[in-house]
Amino acid sequence: MTDVTTATGAGWLSREDMDAARERLPILYVDVVPVRVDGHGVVTAVGLLLRAGEDGQIKRALVSGRVLYHERVRAALVRHVEKDLGPLALPRIPPAPQPFTVAEYFPTPGVTPFHDPRQHAVSLAYVVPVAGDCAPQQDALELTWFAPDEARDPGVLAELANGQSALLLQALAHLGV
Amino acid sequence: MTDVTTATGAGWLSREDMDAARERLPILYVDVVPVRVDGHGVVTAVGLLLRAGEDGQIKRALVSGRVLYHERVRAALVRHVEKDLGPLALPRIPPAPQPFTVAEYFPTPGVTPFHDPRQHAVSLAYVVPVAGDCAPQQDALELTWFAPDEARDPGVLAELANGQSALLLQALAHLGV
Amino acid sequence: MTDVTTATGAGWLSREDMDAARERLPILYVDVVPVRVDGHGVVTAVGLLLRAGEDGQIKRALVSGRVLYHERVRAALVRHVEKDLGPLALPRIPPAPQPFTVAEYFPTPGVTPFHDPRQHAVSLAYVVPVAGDCAPQQDALELTWFAPDEARDPGVLAELANGQSALLLQALAHLGV
Amino acid sequence: MTDVTTATGAGWLSREDMDAARERLPILYVDVVPVRVDGHGVVTAVGLLLRAGEDGQIKRALVSGRVLYHERVRAALVRHVEKDLGPLALPRIPPAPQPFTVAEYFPTPGVTPFHDPRQHAVSLAYVVPVAGDCAPQQDALELTWFAPDEARDPGVLAELANGQSALLLQALAHLGV
Repeated sequence: MTDVTTATGAGWLSREDMDAARERLPILYVDVVPVRVDGHGVVTAVGLLLRAGEDGQIKRALVSGRVLYHERVRAALVRHVEKDLGPLALPRIPPAPQPFTVAEYFPTPGVTPFHDPRQHAVSLAYVVPVAGDCAPQQDALELTWFAPDEARDPGVLAELANGQSALLLQALAHLGV
Repeated sequence: MTDVTTATGAGWLSREDMDAARERLPILYVDVVPVRVDGHGVVTAVGLLLRAGEDGQIKRALVSGRVLYHERVRAALVRHVEKDLGPLALPRIPPAPQPFTVAEYFPTPGVTPFHDPRQHAVSLAYVVPVAGDCAPQQDALELTWFAPDEARDPGVLAELANGQSALLLQALAHLGV
Repeated sequence: MTDVTTATGAGWLSREDMDAARERLPILYVDVVPVRVDGHGVVTAVGLLLRAGEDGQIKRALVSGRVLYHERVRAALVRHVEKDLGPLALPRIPPAPQPFTVAEYFPTPGVTPFHDPRQHAVSLAYVVPVAGDCAPQQDALELTWFAPDEARDPGVLAELANGQSALLLQALAHLGV
Repeated sequence: MTDVTTATGAGWLSREDMDAARERLPILYVDVVPVRVDGHGVVTAVGLLLRAGEDGQIKRALVSGRVLYHERVRAALVRHVEKDLGPLALPRIPPAPQPFTVAEYFPTPGVTPFHDPRQHAVSLAYVVPVAGDCAPQQDALELTWFAPDEARDPGVLAELANGQSALLLQALAHLGV
């Protein structure tokens, strides 16, 4: 239900209205690959959440969520990082709005590598270094940091839902690690 | 009304439903800067449309439009280029989904350089070379090709609505011209 | 020896001078991933060359080569595509100078994924759609087009030298395929 | 003379050898636009140096310098930021190697917007947030922070040498400010 929370009344949608919109419009999302970096900007670890899905299955996930009405994309990035990693994560939001890729989650599997049974979501994907203390929040059960090589392990990738393994691999490729 | 036209029933929204959604959700758009290029990929001209706005004013505009439900971003790019420049424009859609920037049009002026009184639109912006014959279609009155230096002229920029002058300057900067 | 050929005298270096420079300075390169695209810009095939290396081994390779003195990067892209794929390849050089990544080939293996025993080369990497007839030229023995999924095959990747398998995977990730 | 300094003997070139190389090869550079950002990644200020040029003229400049033999691009970024802004600048080097643009400085004016009478330099350009205390070092006389709007002022732009005003404008466009 975190998706329907918003700081201003303007962006509020009832569960029913949101469900209706989800059948009619692509919904704008952000995906965040949280990373630890050293003083040269080299990625030393990638953070993956452990979540209980709607079907009760435990899956790994990236930080991800909807952009609200009248919300800047960068405000959505801060909000979702803090929602999932806690208020002390100290995310370093990229200064430029250019995402490293755009992930198109289709309700029909197979159109793209990304799949979301609930909706057609189009997600702006960013790598976000976090400098502070991270602790899983709300519906996230655990946060695990993987070295870039470990994150690429087929066993880890298989635990990511909705095609986010493809997005993680795209992020690692973009990072050159 | 071109915004509500769609090839499949799935994406269809009544005018009322779309108006309701526009008050509640950011709407996903694409912006296209159509260009002519030479054999080395150097941009020789930038295409700007002349449109009659809803207020009857004649304004210049980029190729722009909504992404529909269950539509790939690249299909939306093709559709809007053909809608505005005609079926013989031969757009060369970029092979990678990374936009050169993301333009956030707010209904409230001043939040970003971009403004759309009707809605909160978030637009993925691409430069698209067109190789074929272009002819303005539907509500576009004219298509004019400007050399990159002419496109930067304050007189031309002043004719662009909704802050698209900022987006055009961003495109020219990205192109290095 | 193609590296030392140049259209103007200004860029000419004797084999000895070039060898000396290679021990002292990073050498600027371009890497090109040639692709076939459909009308929506979707990559349908990736082109890989088959070359005989200096050690006599047959290896797959991307289109690659040095940027010469007083040569624009985009001119180097055209020159190397035509050198390897022939004069009828009709490359569509990207209009913007932003590469999708920068590959750092070190003479010492293991510093980065990329390795070049001859030199420290820093390479600007671009995806270049080619629309015309391609035929391997000069020291290229063969050009093979792979569907994106085939190009990712471990057997194919293992045939690429100098860490270019990493660069090919980065290109495929950037393309979202 | 900072250009010829290097931490390892391998990259050392005598003044004569470097001058010879400069007449024969493009020289790899990095350009850095140092910025201050707020907690949402919004750029609040851009840093410009004041330097005495070889001709004795005082000019504004970006942080800029050569990549050395066997030096990673990200190590060159750290080195040049520390060389110009001091050891306490705390640069946040971008985790991905993709530059926002590539600036080609030609010895002949007019080939590109960028000009360097000494050499053909090809420069990878990055925006680098700095979080610490900055103090101009060595041949930099002063460091001034400008709000993004002030940095775009024609008077400020006119003080930048070698076409770096174009690069600064490209950076501001990339940042969406």
